[in-house]
Amino acid sequence: MARDKSVVVGHRSLVVGRSKKDQRLTDDQRLTTDDQRPTTISPRRVVIDALVPEIDGGRFPIKRTVGDRVEVVATVFADGHDLLNVVLRDRRTTYNAEPAEHAEQVFSASSASSALYVDAGWRETPMTLAAPGTDRFVAGFAVDALGWHEYQVIGWVDVFRSWRRDLEIKAAAGQDVSLELLEGSMIVRDAARRNAAGTEPATGGRESDWLLTQADALSDSTPIGDRLAVARADSLDAAMAARADRGAATASEIRRVWVDRARARFGAWYEMFPRSAGSAADRSGTFAEAARHLPSIAALGFDVVYLPPIHPIGTSFRKGRDNSLVAGPGDPGSPWAIGSRAGGHTAIDPALGTIDDFHAFQDEAVRAGLEIALDLAWQCSPDHPWVREHPEWFRHRPDGTIKYAENPPKRYQDIYPFDFESDDWPALWRALLDVALFWIGHGVRIFRVDNPHTKTFGFWQWFIDEIHLRHPDVIFLSEAFTRPAPMLYLAKAGFTQSYTYFTWRTTKAELTEYFTELTSTDVREYLRPNLFANTPDILHAFLQHGGRPAFETRLLLAATLGASYGIYSGFELCEGEAVPGTEEYAHSEKYEYRKRDWDRPGHIKPLIARVNAIRRAHTALQHDWSLRFHETDNPQIIAYSKTGGGERLLMVINLDPHHMQHGHVRADIDSTYPYTVHDLLDDVRYGWHGDWNYVRLDPGVRQGHILRLPPVSSNLEV
Amino acid sequence: MARDKSVVVGHRSLVVGRSKKDQRLTDDQRLTTDDQRPTTISPRRVVIDALVPEIDGGRFPIKRTVGDRVEVVATVFADGHDLLNVVLRDRRTTYNAEPAEHAEQVFSASSASSALYVDAGWRETPMTLAAPGTDRFVAGFAVDALGWHEYQVIGWVDVFRSWRRDLEIKAAAGQDVSLELLEGSMIVRDAARRNAAGTEPATGGRESDWLLTQADALSDSTPIGDRLAVARADSLDAAMAARADRGAATASEIRRVWVDRARARFGAWYEMFPRSAGSAADRSGTFAEAARHLPSIAALGFDVVYLPPIHPIGTSFRKGRDNSLVAGPGDPGSPWAIGSRAGGHTAIDPALGTIDDFHAFQDEAVRAGLEIALDLAWQCSPDHPWVREHPEWFRHRPDGTIKYAENPPKRYQDIYPFDFESDDWPALWRALLDVALFWIGHGVRIFRVDNPHTKTFGFWQWFIDEIHLRHPDVIFLSEAFTRPAPMLYLAKAGFTQSYTYFTWRTTKAELTEYFTELTSTDVREYLRPNLFANTPDILHAFLQHGGRPAFETRLLLAATLGASYGIYSGFELCEGEAVPGTEEYAHSEKYEYRKRDWDRPGHIKPLIARVNAIRRAHTALQHDWSLRFHETDNPQIIAYSKTGGGERLLMVINLDPHHMQHGHVRADIDSTYPYTVHDLLDDVRYGWHGDWNYVRLDPGVRQGHILRLPPVSSNLEV
Repeated sequence: MARDKSVVVGHRSLVVGRSKKDQRLTDDQRLTTDDQRPTTISPRRVVIDALVPEIDGGRFPIKRTVGDRVEVVATVFADGHDLLNVVLRDRRTTYNAEPAEHAEQVFSASSASSALYVDAGWRETPMTLAAPGTDRFVAGFAVDALGWHEYQVIGWVDVFRSWRRDLEIKAAAGQDVSLELLEGSMIVRDAARRNAAGTEPATGGRESDWLLTQADALSDSTPIGDRLAVARADSLDAAMAARADRGAATASEIRRVWVDRARARFGAWYEMFPRSAGSAADRSGTFAEAARHLPSIAALGFDVVYLPPIHPIGTSFRKGRDNSLVAGPGDPGSPWAIGSRAGGHTAIDPALGTIDDFHAFQDEAVRAGLEIALDLAWQCSPDHPWVREHPEWFRHRPDGTIKYAENPPKRYQDIYPFDFESDDWPALWRALLDVALFWIGHGVRIFRVDNPHTKTFGFWQWFIDEIHLRHPDVIFLSEAFTRPAPMLYLAKAGFTQSYTYFTWRTTKAELTEYFTELTSTDVREYLRPNLFANTPDILHAFLQHGGRPAFETRLLLAATLGASYGIYSGFELCEGEAVPGTEEYAHSEKYEYRKRDWDRPGHIKPLIARVNAIRRAHTALQHDWSLRFHETDNPQIIAYSKTGGGERLLMVINLDPHHMQHGHVRADIDSTYPYTVHDLLDDVRYGWHGDWNYVRLDPGVRQGHILRLPPVSSNLEV
Repeated sequence: MARDKSVVVGHRSLVVGRSKKDQRLTDDQRLTTDDQRPTTISPRRVVIDALVPEIDGGRFPIKRTVGDRVEVVATVFADGHDLLNVVLRDRRTTYNAEPAEHAEQVFSASSASSALYVDAGWRETPMTLAAPGTDRFVAGFAVDALGWHEYQVIGWVDVFRSWRRDLEIKAAAGQDVSLELLEGSMIVRDAARRNAAGTEPATGGRESDWLLTQADALSDSTPIGDRLAVARADSLDAAMAARADRGAATASEIRRVWVDRARARFGAWYEMFPRSAGSAADRSGTFAEAARHLPSIAALGFDVVYLPPIHPIGTSFRKGRDNSLVAGPGDPGSPWAIGSRAGGHTAIDPALGTIDDFHAFQDEAVRAGLEIALDLAWQCSPDHPWVREHPEWFRHRPDGTIKYAENPPKRYQDIYPFDFESDDWPALWRALLDVALFWIGHGVRIFRVDNPHTKTFGFWQWFIDEIHLRHPDVIFLSEAFTRPAPMLYLAKAGFTQSYTYFTWRTTKAELTEYFTELTSTDVREYLRPNLFANTPDILHAFLQHGGRPAFETRLLLAATLGASYGIYSGFELCEGEAVPGTEEYAHSEKYEYRKRDWDRPGHIKPLIARVNAIRRAHTALQHDWSLRFHETDNPQIIAYSKTGGGERLLMVINLDPHHMQHGHVRADIDSTYPYTVHDLLDDVRYGWHGDWNYVRLDPGVRQGHILRLPPVSSNLEV
C-alpha cells in the first residue's frame, strides 16, 4: 500500500491517506510554507480532535514499560449524523540503519538516508464511544517490546451501517423502503469491488461473489420483509466491515511511545561509595571489598546499586574533609572532580581497581541479583586529560585559564564544566556519547546523570536518543534539583526517571498535593519519579531531628509512594548528623572515606527488608498511577492506596516521629459487614467495619501500616 | 536580514533563527520526514515551552477584535543560571496577491506562488517574569488592524547582564574581580563589532566607538572601583541591550491571531422576517414595508438586523402552516427551501422586491444606524436552478431522484442538501464562495450560517478563510445546535460567533457552569457566544409558561451575560405560544406570514431599550472575559459581575418568573463603610454595606438589577 502522504485540512490538523478525490491536489499546489494558511483542501468529513495522551501537541513522546497499556482517547465526529468507524492503530518501529552511520549523518553534510525505520505493520483496535454525546472514542493497546512504538487514530464514515440504521428506522415507521434497499444494494456492490484492504480493485474471490449475491438479493423483487432480513444479517455486516471504504478516512498525526524495560518503572535503589568499603578508614576501599557488601544489599531487597563516579579524581584544588578548600594528605577528594593523570571518564580510579576488578564486581552483583548503575557527570577536574587534549571544549578566561564551575559567590575550582556551545561542540558531544557507549560496552545499563540542568537541554535529547537507538534497555535517571520547568522538560526530553522534590515534602498537605500532581496529571505520561529518601547532598532536617522513627516514616513513604525509590547508604543506620543549619552530612562521604559499622544498633534493616519484600510480592506497589489519597482526621496521619494485581493496599503512616498519633482513616469501602485488613508489615490482622476506622501509630512500635484491604467485587486492575 | 529558517531541536519544539553555529547543519542533514526523531541538532541553550494562548498546539488561531490585547505567557529557561532576555514579537501580516488568483491556485495544478504574505515587520515587547521560580514570562500586545496577526516568543542568554550580575556578587563578597572585568571588556568589545540588529559585521558608528572606549575602560589599569562604575553605568547597559547577540536565540513557533472588527464581539441582534412586515396577513411584506420597521428596531437599541433567507422559495413539497406537509394556496413556505424559477441563492424572492429594493432597505438601515445580516443556507429546494444545472452537486437515488434532507424517520422533502464530497466538489465549493461574494458585493458584511454542522467541516475552514482574504470585516455566525465537539470545532475553524446552549440553560447552576466554561477556559480564545434568547426554532418552555417576567429574566440574562446577544421578533411582545409539548412556535413564522401588533400591551420594549442603552454606555458589558459569578443565598437569584472601563457592574436576576424572590448577594467588596450601588435599569440607588447585601425582586416590579458598584482602588480594566 502506498505510504500515506500528508494532505492537510486546516492548519495541520488532519493527516489523511491518499484518496482518489485528493489527486486533484498535488504537492505543487501546496502554498509556500511562509504561508500558514491551509496548504491543501480536502472534502474529508471526519474530524479527529483532542487526541490523548499527547505531550505538548505531540512534540514529545509518552513513556511506558514493556507490558503496559496505552489508553487512547480522541474526539471524532463528522458533519450530519452518519455512523463512524474509529480505529486505533499501533505499531512497533524498528531501527533499520547502522547506528554509527546515523550519528555521523547528524553531523556531516551528507544526504540523509531514507527509511531509517521500518514498520512492523499496523495493528488495529476498534475504538468505542466513551459516553453518549461526547464524541470521545476510547481504546487501548499494550506495548510488548522495548523501543519506539507509534499510535494513530483513523476515522471514516461507515456508509453501510449508517444506511442500515436509517433503513431500520424508516421500516419501523412504516415508510416505503424500496429505494433504500436499492441504495443498500449499490453500497454492497461497491464493497464487492473493493478488496479486503478497502481499496480498489478487488482481487475477486468467494467473498466478493457472495457480496454480489447479497446485493442482488437486496434489490430483487422478493417481499420487503425478506430483503430486510438480508440487510440485517450478521454475515453481511461482518463482510461489509471487512471491506470498509477507507479511501476517505481521516487520520490523526502519529504519536510516539518510548517503551522501557520494567526496571525503568519499578525498583529499589541503593547508593554506595565503593571507596568506603575498605577495612581501614584512611584508605580507599577496592571493588573487591565493595563486592563483599553486595550480598547484604541484596538481602535487604534492593535491585539497583548506584555508584557515584568511579573515575580517577583530580588533585588540583581537591576538596578536603567537610568541603574544605584544601585537601589534607590522605583526603580522597570529591568523586565528581573527574580526571587525573590516571585517566578521565573512561578510566577507573586506580585505588578502586582495574577494569577487571570492575567486571568482577559486576559479576558479584549479577550473582546477588543486583544491577549496577554508574554516574555520568559531564565535567572535568583541572587534571583531566581532556583539559590538555581538548582545550576548546572548555570556556577560557582572559588570563588563559579555564573557567571553573561557579555559582557566585561560590567557586568550585575542582570542577571545569564543558562548553556545550563551543565551536567544536559536535566533537565534544560525540566524545560524551562515546563515554557512555564505553561503559555500556562494559555491561552497564543504568546511568544516574549528575545535574543535567546545567548542560544544554538539546544535548540530552540527542544523547539519550542516540543511546537508545543502540541500547533501548538503558535507563537514565535525571538528578535535576532545580525549578519545575527545567526539571519537567528533562523528563519530556527523554530521561527515564527523575529525582523529585520528595525529600522536601514532609507534611501531609505537601505530600498529597505533590504526589497527586505526579500521578494524576499528564506529568505521569513522561516523568517517572525515583524517590530517594536521602542523597549525599541532602539530609533533610526531618531526618536530622526525628531519630529512628523519622527514618522509618520516610522509608515507608518513599517505598510505597514510589514504584521506584532509593536510599543512600547510611540511611539504614539512621545516620542523621548534619553540618548544623544545612542539609549537608557531617563528615560527608563526598570528601572522605566513611567506614561504617553496618550492624550498629538502632538500624532499620529489618523494616527495609520487609518493605522491599512486600513491594516485590504485590503488583500494586510496582506502579504509581493508581495512587489515591484517603481522608484521615489527623493531619499527622497520611493515608493512601494503590491498586493492582487484583488487590488494594492502603498505606497509613504517622508523619510525627516523636509522638503517638491516632485517629481515623477513610477506607473508601462501602460495606455493612465487618471485614479484615491485613498489615503486611507485621502480619497482624485488624477487624474493620464500614468506611472510617481507627488507627494508632506509636513511634518505636510501628510507624505505619501497609494494609491489604479485602477484595471488592469490581475489577481492581490498574 | 535573511529570513529565519527552521532549525529544529527535538521534535519540532523550537524554531530558531540561523546562526553561525548552525551552518554545519544544512537542510541536507535533515533526516527523512518519515523519521520523527529530531531532524537537526543544535546547541541552543534556551528552551521555550508551554506558550499560551495556543489552540490545539497551534493548529487553530485565536480570535480578537480591533483594539484588544493579547497577553502571552511562555515558560522560558536555559541550563545553568544565566539571565535571559525574553521578547514577545508580533506583527500584522498583509495579503499580497490577487485573491482571485489565490483561489484558483488551490484548485488548479499550477505552482503555488511564493510570498503570499508580506510582513509588516516585527514589533517587540520585553517579557517579564510572572512570579519568581516559575520561569513563566508574560507580556502583551494590542492588535490594531483587521486580519491576520502573528506572535512569537524569542529568548536568548543575556551575556552582558549575567556577567554584570556575577561581577556584583563577587565584588560584594570581596573577591578579586580583575579577571571578570577583563571578561566583561571582551563581551563589550564583541558587542561593538555587532550592529544594532545584533548581527555582524557592525556598520561602525559613534555607538560602536563609544562601546570600544568602555571596553578599554573595563580592562585598563585604573582602580577596580572606577572600573566597577563603568560596568554599572546605565548607559553601558542600554547600549549593550541594543546590541544583544541574538545569533543563538531560540524562537517559538509562530502563532496566529485573527482580528475582527468590534461588532464581532459586541452587538445587539434582532431577527425579523421581512415578509411579515406587510399590511395584510395574507400576502408577503416587501422590503419597502420592512424598511419602515427599521427605525423602531433602532430605537430599541439594536445594532444588527438579521434576516432569514431572502431568496425565492421552492414550490415542490412546500411546507404549509405549522409545518404541515402540504402547503395551502397562500402559504409562503419555509425561507430555507431556497430556489425557484425566479432564481436561487443570488436572487431575491420577487414578493420581497428587487435588488434595488434591497439596496433601499439597506440604505434605511444605514440611516437608522443598523447593519443587515443575511442567512447563508447551503441547500436547495427541488426547484432551485442548480438542481437542473448541476445535478452532480447533489446525491442521487437509484430511481434518479435527488436525495432530500432527512433525519430518519423525519423527511424534509422541500430541501435538497449538497453533496460536499461529490466528484465535482471544487466547482460546488467555488459556487458557494461566489454566492457569498455576490452578497458581499451588494454591501452585506454579516452572515448567519444555517446548520454548518451538517456540511463538511473542511469546507467551512476554507470558505471563511477565502472570504476573509478579501473582506476581513465579514462576520460569520454559526448556528450549530449540535454536540459540543462539532460546535466548538466550527468556532476553531473560523466562525466569528456561535449560537450556544444558552436557551437551555435556565437554572442558576446550569448558567453558572456553562458561562464559566465559556468565559474562563480557553474556549473563549476562539468561540464568541451570541446569546439569542429565542429563535424561530426555539421557544423554550421557560418562556412558554413564565409570562412576561420570564421574558424579562431571559432578556436580562442574554443582554448582560453576552456582549453579543439577540432576540427573534415577537420576543419583545412576549409571544409565548408554542405547539404543545414542543419548542416550536404555534403558527410559526417559518411557514406563514405573521402580522403583529407591535404595540400590543404587555410588551417589554422599554426594558429592552433601557438595557441596550446601558450596554452601549458601559464598556464592561461589551466584553465577556471579566464575567465572575457571585454567591447568593437563594438558588432562584443569580448574580454575576463584569468589569471594564473602570467600572464593575453587578447583575442580580430573579430566575423565578412567578414569585417574589429575595435573599442576599455577595458583592465581593471588602469595606467597613457603607456604600451606594446604583441600579442603572431604573436609576435607583441603594445603600449597601459590607460584602453580603439584601435584594428583593418582584416579578412585575423588577426582575433584576444592573448595579454599578462603587469604584475600587485597584485597576478594574479587563
